[in-house]
Amino acid sequence: MDSIIEKRIGVPKLRDRIVSAEEAAALIPDGAVVGLSGFTRAGDAKVVPMALVERAKKEKFKIDVYTGASLGPEVDHYLAEAGVIRKRGPYQGEKAMRNLINKGDILYVDAHLSHNAELVRQGIIGPIKYAVIEVCAITEDGLLIPTTSVGNSPIFAQYAENIILELNISHSDTLIGIHDIYVPGPQGKREPIPITNANQRIGEIGIRVDLDKIKAIVISEEPDAPSLIVPPDEETRRMADLLLDFFRSEIKAGRLTNELMPIQSGVGSVANAVLDGFKESEFENLQVYSECLQDAVFNLIDAGKVNFASATSITLTAEAQQKVYGNIEKYADKICLRPQEISNHPEVVRRLGLISINAALEVDIYGNVNSTHVAGTKMMNGIGGSGDFARNARLTVFVTKSYAKGGAISSIVPMVSHVDHTEHDVDVIVTEQGIADLRGLAPKERVPLIIENCAHPDFKDQLWDYYNRAVEATGNSQTPHILEEALSWHVNLLKNNTMKK
Amino acid sequence: MDSIIEKRIGVPKLRDRIVSAEEAAALIPDGAVVGLSGFTRAGDAKVVPMALVERAKKEKFKIDVYTGASLGPEVDHYLAEAGVIRKRGPYQGEKAMRNLINKGDILYVDAHLSHNAELVRQGIIGPIKYAVIEVCAITEDGLLIPTTSVGNSPIFAQYAENIILELNISHSDTLIGIHDIYVPGPQGKREPIPITNANQRIGEIGIRVDLDKIKAIVISEEPDAPSLIVPPDEETRRMADLLLDFFRSEIKAGRLTNELMPIQSGVGSVANAVLDGFKESEFENLQVYSECLQDAVFNLIDAGKVNFASATSITLTAEAQQKVYGNIEKYADKICLRPQEISNHPEVVRRLGLISINAALEVDIYGNVNSTHVAGTKMMNGIGGSGDFARNARLTVFVTKSYAKGGAISSIVPMVSHVDHTEHDVDVIVTEQGIADLRGLAPKERVPLIIENCAHPDFKDQLWDYYNRAVEATGNSQTPHILEEALSWHVNLLKNNTMKK
Repeated sequence: MDSIIEKRIGVPKLRDRIVSAEEAAALIPDGAVVGLSGFTRAGDAKVVPMALVERAKKEKFKIDVYTGASLGPEVDHYLAEAGVIRKRGPYQGEKAMRNLINKGDILYVDAHLSHNAELVRQGIIGPIKYAVIEVCAITEDGLLIPTTSVGNSPIFAQYAENIILELNISHSDTLIGIHDIYVPGPQGKREPIPITNANQRIGEIGIRVDLDKIKAIVISEEPDAPSLIVPPDEETRRMADLLLDFFRSEIKAGRLTNELMPIQSGVGSVANAVLDGFKESEFENLQVYSECLQDAVFNLIDAGKVNFASATSITLTAEAQQKVYGNIEKYADKICLRPQEISNHPEVVRRLGLISINAALEVDIYGNVNSTHVAGTKMMNGIGGSGDFARNARLTVFVTKSYAKGGAISSIVPMVSHVDHTEHDVDVIVTEQGIADLRGLAPKERVPLIIENCAHPDFKDQLWDYYNRAVEATGNSQTPHILEEALSWHVNLLKNNTMKK
Repeated sequence: MDSIIEKRIGVPKLRDRIVSAEEAAALIPDGAVVGLSGFTRAGDAKVVPMALVERAKKEKFKIDVYTGASLGPEVDHYLAEAGVIRKRGPYQGEKAMRNLINKGDILYVDAHLSHNAELVRQGIIGPIKYAVIEVCAITEDGLLIPTTSVGNSPIFAQYAENIILELNISHSDTLIGIHDIYVPGPQGKREPIPITNANQRIGEIGIRVDLDKIKAIVISEEPDAPSLIVPPDEETRRMADLLLDFFRSEIKAGRLTNELMPIQSGVGSVANAVLDGFKESEFENLQVYSECLQDAVFNLIDAGKVNFASATSITLTAEAQQKVYGNIEKYADKICLRPQEISNHPEVVRRLGLISINAALEVDIYGNVNSTHVAGTKMMNGIGGSGDFARNARLTVFVTKSYAKGGAISSIVPMVSHVDHTEHDVDVIVTEQGIADLRGLAPKERVPLIIENCAHPDFKDQLWDYYNRAVEATGNSQTPHILEEALSWHVNLLKNNTMKK
């Protein structure tokens, strides 16, 4: 046996369980509920799912696939195209799978990412026949060490009847120690989660399981799919500047200090760009308590701005992968990966008082946010962790460019076509046009701020026209709407490819 | 001085601060932000607000009024009609005030009830010039003992510049000891809330304040306005039966035991009736962890079914008031009133694994819930604590009769006209027609359960017709809708007083 492999499998009896990906994939029965490791394309099971795709060429079967969040795009893509997925949850972001979801070929359960573990405990998700988990090592005392994400792996491993491990030796074993695995007990019999600071470790360095459940170990050298976020542009830089100025005004008002509060930043280019804006700022000793660490977080660590970053995954561009994984020792004492139940837990989010920054698809004039559905009917990606953070953060910010499709679409609309975050949960809206601070305001007080500060100039008159007529039509009610017209901007878009009248 | 009053004001120097309600009301300046005690008509400030109403007859002024939740209907009614309210939050349920809110005369900030305390800490609500708090006593060591609700009184008292107390001597001082006042520290510097069982006391018996802030004490004998809930009828009894049967099936599935999990039950007749259904059931050793204790809870304590009930207020019918307050010793070790920040805290709600039962105004075929807005524009009452519980409970149930206005309105609609609880937060829907268990289901899987089990027979065909055409129109997308028609049922209602085609 390869000495690296021997070293990475610290429990000798497990070394006999090494099989090929094909052999492992063959274990999974038709109809099974399967839990896969992986969160925002990081630390995902790769070679066993791809072997399932191969198997599907010879044999018809369907499985339900639950993950942490999105898998690498290739894995979700080929799993989708192979037609083996009956149901998928709780998040995905791949195009081919999205198309099949929106054709009704795959059932998709879009859920708050902190909720999955409770649903597994209750057996609502399950019984899980197999968990397939990427690890970089099994320690001598039998702890499974995840790679670049923790996600739902601990709860899958605990509740699955059987476990398949993908031992990924492309990762350095210096990853050992960056994870912090704490799994709450059953509801009603559980202690408080003892985190009072983002930098606190409260659990073990790996996942403790009944080793007899490990039915196969597959050796893998597949790297994580790199993230494809685009660098900040003029508009996302402007959004970052607006937000930093807002934080400055909060400091002046005595509501924040120069260290702010732990920051959660959503996945994707816009959120990454906003975070990147801190690099040249005066803010310091920042902490991150988020679900996914993107390039910007490591840039901020390098710049001495962020002194600790906690999350459940690390998702990097190819360039940043080299920088970070090539020097993981440099970052090891400044980062921590937790189960997504903990990274996204309302208890911790509210206790620490997070500043939460997530992307919106569209926002309405009263502050309701759509994060998931294009024109109310087609799933884009999913709500992810945004709801876990938005309702419980100290300051809940949604960011979006004010327009899309070259100006044909306004991201500020009379009524959002799907609600993921209600008016009760949204504090601040930022677009490249400006910022609207909605805290403490009644719905009609929010309208001028959202239209005047955030909407694209091309749509301001049209928004005011709708609102003024709605006020008239409802006798100035709590939330004026003309129900016949409330979704007419989306109807126009579907028919004429524009929201412009 | 009356010996009762002397006894109830345990700190001698405070006895000099007794003034008339008029004198106290005169202290509150025009433009002030005022925090009033009161939650679901219980323990509300009464005589000082009514003196403000009198003052308004001679003098023009406006104030912003924040409370725990609803005040007694008379107080909110006369305050509204006097025209002294500029802004009102976070909840109210009185008709005259509702009308003024829906005419734009009063700004209304409808908010999650657990959120207020954080907003006060941050100064988003505030600065609070005066807190007016009903108490039944001030102890010798200066603790303010609330009466029948705690609500936001502790945070108002902590942050208000000045405090006016309404010492209500109509309450027995045997109320001393039923409150448990625990106020979390600032976010980021706070410890876990140490509650791991609904019956646990973690704080002091009263509110600790800087006594110098107490500018006036007004003696009151005004009782709480009794609640007007209607007794269970055939339909609400049927809903209770359906829910109990559902719990039985959960026990069979191994997800619950005969003691269930701590129950939260919303305010109003339907929720009360559902809870009342436990009386003749086999369930026992039940606990309640709720925001408001209504008649049914005390009936269940009497029946030996509930062994502990925690909340932030007690709201009873006139008959039950006599029973409970006449024998408060009997209940004192079985109940506990906490600040609403704690009764509704996501941290505790998820830790204890609550079963949460709240009323919906309408539900759509995908499981989104409207709790607040009639036909999307007019405020009914408010979201109250339903969002605090719905997102974090172990089991989130919404109850509604399947129809309203004698059958003209269907409570099950294609698309709700306002979203307070998203599809991600709703587990179970109960109407008098049946029950839909939506857990773990994709949107299109939920549709047949909601239509077939919950909709009124008069509307089933119309719902199926909409859905089938929406599937066709969207190519069977994740959430099929025909945007032109999605709100047409409400438009029909506004125009023709019916949702029937």
